[in-house]
Amino acid sequence: MKRYFTLLMLIGFLSVYSQDDKDMIKKFFDNSMSSSVSYELLDHLSNEIGGRLSGSLNAERAVEWGRKELIKVGFDKVWLQDVMVPKWVRGPKEFALIETQPGTTFNVDVCALGGSVATPSVGIKSNVIEVYDFDELKILGKEKIDGKIVFFNRPMQPNLINTFQAYGEAVSMRVNGAAEAVKYGAIGVIIRSMSLRLDDFPHTGVMSYGNLPPSKRIPAAAISTNAAEKLSNLLKINPDLKFLLRQQCKQFKDVKSHNVIAEIKGSTYPNEIILVGGHLDSWDLGDGSHDDGAGIVQSIDVLNILNKSGYKPKRTIRVVLFMNEENGLRGAIKYAEVSKNNSLNHIFALESDAGGFTPLGFSFTSNEENFSKISEWKNLFDPYLIQTFVMGGSGADISLLEKSNNVLAGLRPDSQRYFDYHHAANDTFDAINKRELELGAFAMTSLIYLFDKYGINN
Amino acid sequence: MKRYFTLLMLIGFLSVYSQDDKDMIKKFFDNSMSSSVSYELLDHLSNEIGGRLSGSLNAERAVEWGRKELIKVGFDKVWLQDVMVPKWVRGPKEFALIETQPGTTFNVDVCALGGSVATPSVGIKSNVIEVYDFDELKILGKEKIDGKIVFFNRPMQPNLINTFQAYGEAVSMRVNGAAEAVKYGAIGVIIRSMSLRLDDFPHTGVMSYGNLPPSKRIPAAAISTNAAEKLSNLLKINPDLKFLLRQQCKQFKDVKSHNVIAEIKGSTYPNEIILVGGHLDSWDLGDGSHDDGAGIVQSIDVLNILNKSGYKPKRTIRVVLFMNEENGLRGAIKYAEVSKNNSLNHIFALESDAGGFTPLGFSFTSNEENFSKISEWKNLFDPYLIQTFVMGGSGADISLLEKSNNVLAGLRPDSQRYFDYHHAANDTFDAINKRELELGAFAMTSLIYLFDKYGINN
Repeated sequence: MKRYFTLLMLIGFLSVYSQDDKDMIKKFFDNSMSSSVSYELLDHLSNEIGGRLSGSLNAERAVEWGRKELIKVGFDKVWLQDVMVPKWVRGPKEFALIETQPGTTFNVDVCALGGSVATPSVGIKSNVIEVYDFDELKILGKEKIDGKIVFFNRPMQPNLINTFQAYGEAVSMRVNGAAEAVKYGAIGVIIRSMSLRLDDFPHTGVMSYGNLPPSKRIPAAAISTNAAEKLSNLLKINPDLKFLLRQQCKQFKDVKSHNVIAEIKGSTYPNEIILVGGHLDSWDLGDGSHDDGAGIVQSIDVLNILNKSGYKPKRTIRVVLFMNEENGLRGAIKYAEVSKNNSLNHIFALESDAGGFTPLGFSFTSNEENFSKISEWKNLFDPYLIQTFVMGGSGADISLLEKSNNVLAGLRPDSQRYFDYHHAANDTFDAINKRELELGAFAMTSLIYLFDKYGINN
Repeated sequence: MKRYFTLLMLIGFLSVYSQDDKDMIKKFFDNSMSSSVSYELLDHLSNEIGGRLSGSLNAERAVEWGRKELIKVGFDKVWLQDVMVPKWVRGPKEFALIETQPGTTFNVDVCALGGSVATPSVGIKSNVIEVYDFDELKILGKEKIDGKIVFFNRPMQPNLINTFQAYGEAVSMRVNGAAEAVKYGAIGVIIRSMSLRLDDFPHTGVMSYGNLPPSKRIPAAAISTNAAEKLSNLLKINPDLKFLLRQQCKQFKDVKSHNVIAEIKGSTYPNEIILVGGHLDSWDLGDGSHDDGAGIVQSIDVLNILNKSGYKPKRTIRVVLFMNEENGLRGAIKYAEVSKNNSLNHIFALESDAGGFTPLGFSFTSNEENFSKISEWKNLFDPYLIQTFVMGGSGADISLLEKSNNVLAGLRPDSQRYFDYHHAANDTFDAINKRELELGAFAMTSLIYLFDKYGINN
């Protein structure tokens, strides 16, 4: 009998949860809503450090801050993992205007896309041609496009409950718009901001020239949704209007930066690693509170909540604050590479990188066997209105850790407001609700606990 | 066979839904996210009319606005139902300070509670005694309380996922604090604002003197949570500090106001009424965008969405914009009374009065038979992450329509942020997210549709 029991423990994964689990999760909830450190940590990261684009001084300040906070929260071991990252600098605030006729101009809100080249110092000024997508670009052809600025005016689709899906469908305009438009002789591209709201904030984000040699690269900027509507309306009245764009951004050589890693050894299965993390870098316009300050502080908070609740992990818990998710994923690549070289066994990894909003559930990358067992835990989350357990993506930083027999997960907060702030100047601490942020940390802690207690089917 | 089928139709309630229902609900979703009128209507109600306390000029402007908008959206018949309502007026902005010693004072943010008497024009100034609740009041007794201002410092409990429950547990301090404290000789009461956030907004709300004669009534005010913390901390250092409160609010005689009612006759069962509504009055400090401008515009939007989707109701759909939910419920009482006198058959009523946030589900007041059938519809809402179908309260305005065999429901939006704004100066249009508001209107329309199509078990 005893041997049978031991065998069961070695198999590890017992999907049946107990009253103990309910009680422990209630304890996590109580401690999350009263003794979470997420909000206070984020206040510092957002307001004392601020935007922290890879390669910037602020990114390095964030690394040092993260290292210290991970020590404070009680990890056995905290270290930095070197990684070379791109360094792109925005320079002075961009300038743009619409000229409907000589002397009649309207200033509009724009920002350079991350990775874009600058305009000449006087700017580029030209006619504009509006397109919805790459198909339309092709139909118009070189004749209509040559020498002009291409204006990609593709709104995110409003009738999708998951706004990340709407983003996924529209974002290639931003990422590949310049590389596509240049084929037809465009001299610059203006992208409607990836936002579902009409407002004056331009939303930056990464773009790529693909294999285009430096001499062929054209400037790419995002324009606010309000300004996109205005430009589109003015073009209907006057297709010959001109657009002036001036930006002085610059790509420098790669510089050294760091992932921040913390670990607490498991008491029973030290070689089974459970990872929780987010990305420490952010775009430069706001202070990156939702993207991804929230994920960073929630990940640190997990150990705080476990400790306050008196739970000692059986497996090794790692927090990783990844560098350079936004424009290179270099931190994630480096971490996966080192993990592979050292044959580390990540049985489970969880990323929070979808904003500090009310958590509605998780999406999992998993084989069916593990997923069907995980799904039985759903009832434990029901009392907290965390009800979505679906198969799907996890998080960009952890996705490289995927194996056939491990489990990856992404926190799924309510996504309705996320793209109001994403990569824009209003992604700031005041857009964070303390309870929503804490509920996310609670959800993450509870899931980590269950994987720690029950393991997976290897 | 035909007779059997007719019988089934007369029974009305067929719980099995069809692919048609899925398609229709998808249509509602698409139209809600592209052609909703909620946000535009709320913009007007909030920004052009503003706070609309019962008996105020703004409340009457809102009545007239509501009437016109209900006609515009396409109701067959729109009318006003007279109702006498209380008229309480705040007067000039309240003033309060803490005096730790003569000459050393701190201004604090307070507001009179609705229904409170004024202070003398110079204010009341006295020592303060802090209590958590009525039990503590009793323990302290007349000896410790007589001649003082009682400070009820009971925070809302943070570890409840439904913040309305936390509100329910603490709100009797606000409602009955003055009537209780006066028993022990208190000369005024200060109530910690009903909010889970630490900030500078005092939150008003209704209070009651019970049977206390006018000569015995003492002033009652709410204090912001930040100021409550400050006052509590200062009291620990100096229990002899003094508090000055000055407010000039006044209760007038009841005045005539109106419920606004709109109806579209059902094509097949005109005598079965389905009601959807919210309350048109609001407190006076903000513009009442969440409480309950959101519910008002969503209710109006239901017919807009049904129309845009080409659905013709089989049962009679009524929208009621109730007057005076906040401090009297007179509109609800009148509506229920008239309905009873006319033997109206409300088979289903739905209220939205929990803010314009992402809808998570509904709570139902229903017998078990109907509830078990309603529960089968839950799957239809799953794709939209609307997953909470629970038994529980519906809404204050419709609660008087309860019968043993009808169904009442309340929209259940995410409640985490609701009490950040509730009854305070920051309950304004800028705290509304367009998508979240529209999703609420979508959820309501879909539920109305299902009750219209399938009826209930009478």
